[in-house]
Amino acid sequence: MHAMDLLLKKRDGGELSTAEIEFFVRAVVRNGEAKLGHPAGDVDGAGETITDAQMGAFLMAVFQRGLSLRELGDLTRAMRFSGETFDGVAEGFGAMKPLMVDKHSTGGVGDKSSLLIAPIVAAAGMVGEPRIAVPMISGRSLGHTGGTLDKLETIPGFDSQLSMQRMGEVLRECHAVLVGQTPRLVPADRILYGMRDHTGTVESPFLICASIMSKKLAESLDGLVLDVKVGSGAFMPTYEQSRFLAELMVSTGEGAGTKTVALLTSMDEPMGRFSGNWVEVWECVEILKGVRHPMSADLVELALMLSGWMLHVGGKAGSPEEGAAMADEMLRSGAAYAAWLRIVAAQGGDVRVFEDPAGFQRPKATRVLRAARAGYLAGMDCKEVGWAVQRLGAGRARPGDPVSAHAGIESHAKVGDWIEAGGAIFTLFSEDEALLAEPYRMLEATVRLEDAPPERQSLVREVVRG
Amino acid sequence: MHAMDLLLKKRDGGELSTAEIEFFVRAVVRNGEAKLGHPAGDVDGAGETITDAQMGAFLMAVFQRGLSLRELGDLTRAMRFSGETFDGVAEGFGAMKPLMVDKHSTGGVGDKSSLLIAPIVAAAGMVGEPRIAVPMISGRSLGHTGGTLDKLETIPGFDSQLSMQRMGEVLRECHAVLVGQTPRLVPADRILYGMRDHTGTVESPFLICASIMSKKLAESLDGLVLDVKVGSGAFMPTYEQSRFLAELMVSTGEGAGTKTVALLTSMDEPMGRFSGNWVEVWECVEILKGVRHPMSADLVELALMLSGWMLHVGGKAGSPEEGAAMADEMLRSGAAYAAWLRIVAAQGGDVRVFEDPAGFQRPKATRVLRAARAGYLAGMDCKEVGWAVQRLGAGRARPGDPVSAHAGIESHAKVGDWIEAGGAIFTLFSEDEALLAEPYRMLEATVRLEDAPPERQSLVREVVRG
Repeated sequence: MHAMDLLLKKRDGGELSTAEIEFFVRAVVRNGEAKLGHPAGDVDGAGETITDAQMGAFLMAVFQRGLSLRELGDLTRAMRFSGETFDGVAEGFGAMKPLMVDKHSTGGVGDKSSLLIAPIVAAAGMVGEPRIAVPMISGRSLGHTGGTLDKLETIPGFDSQLSMQRMGEVLRECHAVLVGQTPRLVPADRILYGMRDHTGTVESPFLICASIMSKKLAESLDGLVLDVKVGSGAFMPTYEQSRFLAELMVSTGEGAGTKTVALLTSMDEPMGRFSGNWVEVWECVEILKGVRHPMSADLVELALMLSGWMLHVGGKAGSPEEGAAMADEMLRSGAAYAAWLRIVAAQGGDVRVFEDPAGFQRPKATRVLRAARAGYLAGMDCKEVGWAVQRLGAGRARPGDPVSAHAGIESHAKVGDWIEAGGAIFTLFSEDEALLAEPYRMLEATVRLEDAPPERQSLVREVVRG
Repeated sequence: MHAMDLLLKKRDGGELSTAEIEFFVRAVVRNGEAKLGHPAGDVDGAGETITDAQMGAFLMAVFQRGLSLRELGDLTRAMRFSGETFDGVAEGFGAMKPLMVDKHSTGGVGDKSSLLIAPIVAAAGMVGEPRIAVPMISGRSLGHTGGTLDKLETIPGFDSQLSMQRMGEVLRECHAVLVGQTPRLVPADRILYGMRDHTGTVESPFLICASIMSKKLAESLDGLVLDVKVGSGAFMPTYEQSRFLAELMVSTGEGAGTKTVALLTSMDEPMGRFSGNWVEVWECVEILKGVRHPMSADLVELALMLSGWMLHVGGKAGSPEEGAAMADEMLRSGAAYAAWLRIVAAQGGDVRVFEDPAGFQRPKATRVLRAARAGYLAGMDCKEVGWAVQRLGAGRARPGDPVSAHAGIESHAKVGDWIEAGGAIFTLFSEDEALLAEPYRMLEATVRLEDAPPERQSLVREVVRG
């Protein structure tokens, strides 16, 4: 078998065999490791090579021609098993093995629901039968969206880069672990993502699906709930494209034997009260302590809904509604906050900072965007808001750059709210006064105030099931 | 400007600007030269980079999305001027500058018409006004097709790798020169062709057109006649694809100010009497000496037709028919043979070998394929015949391999001829007895004998003009 065979077949719209897709992923990993100076060292794969140019051409052919569901399942599986997986971690539980359930979001602005969901589901999952654990591998800030790891790492001492062994220990102790990808977990995705990023092949729904699902399925999951964003702050440009991606992911998950459901949820304005890094942790700590700020209502609703679905696909609740009620009880009883403190402490974080989270927020510079006229907050380009947050210092221009802990925005109104002239819309935070001006102008330009109230959208637009 | 801008635009079917296409070709040449260890060294192009993966992805995007005629013209021009051109050679003629006219064929089996056309047009072009010269850059055997350079180099001493200065001298002296591409002529094509060859992007009509036309237009031509093959031995798989390529090339040539015409000609059986390397030179020498073997009739017809068109686009003949009559006169008068001897001698070839060309043909092994039954020769897969010729030793498995001078086949019948049972169809020549068996089987399997005569196809199927 040669890389050219695959290239010509996919170029002309043909369907690749399982063996051809496995060949491609093996060759990609070998090419990537050879560049890192690692010896190929595998006798069985001798001669299975692919060049950078062939990888670029292949990815573009897939972008143009797409993949069948069978090809997509094969690609996802080959990527999933390209390195180490959580199979050993799951086995570490022995006879006490819980069901492994996780959530994945396609990324939003101010969406910190993972920080609530992990402790909620862990708290519900550690008592009674079936037991549930949440092996949550998260990412960093990308484009206009925030990253769970960047938020968590504002907690002094918090370590998101655990060894596979330590992940297993935390998971057994806390029923949840919040970590980053290890270099040995799904190496094919790391290499392919880098290649897609500079060959204009990032936006293929097939390649997005394989990238997300290979990493999630490497967590050896029994159940998976996907939060696929729609609206102006979503990664996918149209509702139809978001739904198509959701369908691909649900089909791929179910095909791999993992109970999978996708919720299409609105991302037309920042989620909750704060968008940034530490400010989002702060907001979650307040909620976990039982305080429900009116600006956090949409966030709490989303977190309960997603938790409810996770408890349902994990067999803990007869319906997602029953699961959501169970999740609400975990919040109200303080069980979720206790789980949160356990998880953060187990990962080295200093939980004393949660005693006065507002006091820990000391940005050097702030500015308030006020309404130039009275009116209903009619809408905004949520992606533009996300970019404004990133440029205040919460995001990074290049991978590896540091992010600012205290940069971000606070929302003082939600779409549909009435604002008086001069009323506050957003407060901007930055650690550098000079970084305020451009985001202020971006927010000012994108916020729309109108005389008539806008039509209300429900938070969950659609549920896609297998 | 960045390579990514071009990639995303072409990926989504957009039209690239002239500046973007020029950027691409500059970056390709810089990337290619950097790999050869040449310093980039150009101050004005600093930062204009492209990676192998991006080139692969871009070529695949062009393969899938195509190019507009404007983009194609821009790409061809940028490639044409990526290195040295014949502009200086043309100027070397001073006030005596002739019109530069050339022919290009998309490649066939037994098609040695270049060896006749160059001396015919040179002979007609060196007397009277306007004067015409033929700066013919040819290629080597590729796939199932033969290569003019491989044929010429069977002449002892013949040098096809002349410096640009020596090309000019031969052209001024002989009004024709038969040479190979220099490393500095159209370097963008050399790099892109190597990249296309291993990324599955060879067969794009747009990229084929840019490759052919950039090299031909670098000859600083006033006129160009294209011989685009159709039929089972043609490179393009269907008549429509051949015509589409012809239209692209005519449009590109005319757009560059070169009078361009394309003839769609039949390639359903080997052209002329012999297919191979020296055997094809032998056949041409006989014709140039005035001998017309019946098996050479189609070759002579094609050579006169193409020469006639060249003399017409060069302004020497009022019509292609008048040009063909002039070409025939050049053959009959011996003027073309005299031109041939002059060209070969100027390029270092030993013309004494033409005294007894049959005697110079001494293959070690021969075998005759005979008709198993009586019937009309109804047809064959001409591509399969080409591969048989290559495997007898006339072609090469890899670039740079040597070719056999005396390998090849002789045709004893043409499609439509009646053959008695046991009558000879082909004689196979090889320098290695062991190489006869497989080509013999290939030829035996592809030749069809039938009771009814096949329908006759004309040699020239269609003429495409600007």
